[in-house]
Amino acid sequence: MGSYEVRPVGWIESPLTDVTTAPRQGDEGAPDVWIVVRPEVADALHGVEPGAEVVVLTWLHLARRHVLAVHPRDDPDRPLTGVFATRSADRPNPIGLHQARVLAVEGCRVRVGGCEAVDGTPVLDLKPVLGTAPTR
Amino acid sequence: MGSYEVRPVGWIESPLTDVTTAPRQGDEGAPDVWIVVRPEVADALHGVEPGAEVVVLTWLHLARRHVLAVHPRDDPDRPLTGVFATRSADRPNPIGLHQARVLAVEGCRVRVGGCEAVDGTPVLDLKPVLGTAPTR
Repeated sequence: MGSYEVRPVGWIESPLTDVTTAPRQGDEGAPDVWIVVRPEVADALHGVEPGAEVVVLTWLHLARRHVLAVHPRDDPDRPLTGVFATRSADRPNPIGLHQARVLAVEGCRVRVGGCEAVDGTPVLDLKPVLGTAPTR
Repeated sequence: MGSYEVRPVGWIESPLTDVTTAPRQGDEGAPDVWIVVRPEVADALHGVEPGAEVVVLTWLHLARRHVLAVHPRDDPDRPLTGVFATRSADRPNPIGLHQARVLAVEGCRVRVGGCEAVDGTPVLDLKPVLGTAPTR
């Protein structure tokens, strides 16, 4: 079984710059952010509109890919748990999953609410949340 | 901005073999499937238990990556829409997102309910659905 190349379609612009102090989840006080999409893929944004609930997939470029088990939320009192049973950023393929609402779309820039990804995080994909809009 | 290498952690075993006739979403009559995890990453499964709601990330290896807009659900009567506003498999980074319930765990094999991915689809990651279990 081979490997595949992911090519970021854009990146996150956020006031969060330090992964050690950033909220762990979007609903834990995370700020609104911009997703900046590369001009070559801008046509893929057509139909993304304010009010839509979206899933943003990111590449957690600061994560450690060799880690298979963690103490959840870095709490040493919690037992070592396989990363597939946690939302740890450290995992074999560090793909971040963030659900957020679209606040604005300005050309290649999409403003979304409450996202814990730090500034400069590569974005891999945007998808509508199923059941929140006509199924496409 | 560079690219990144994703390395499948396993694959889907499913009775579905034809992507053209497979259900488009897990809740559209999709069968139960096995996720087979490579032995090297089996420790990452520790804590994944029957009853858990999980998100399975796959690599939709049959998708066309150059496609930026589609007629939703291949219906020519629906207007051409950017892939980021659809769940089309065709998109720059064809990462599939499947929410399913864990039915059984047997060593490196995880049985999950209702998944539309076809047999042999590479699996990139498993994550718990937030809010359905203690946050880890």
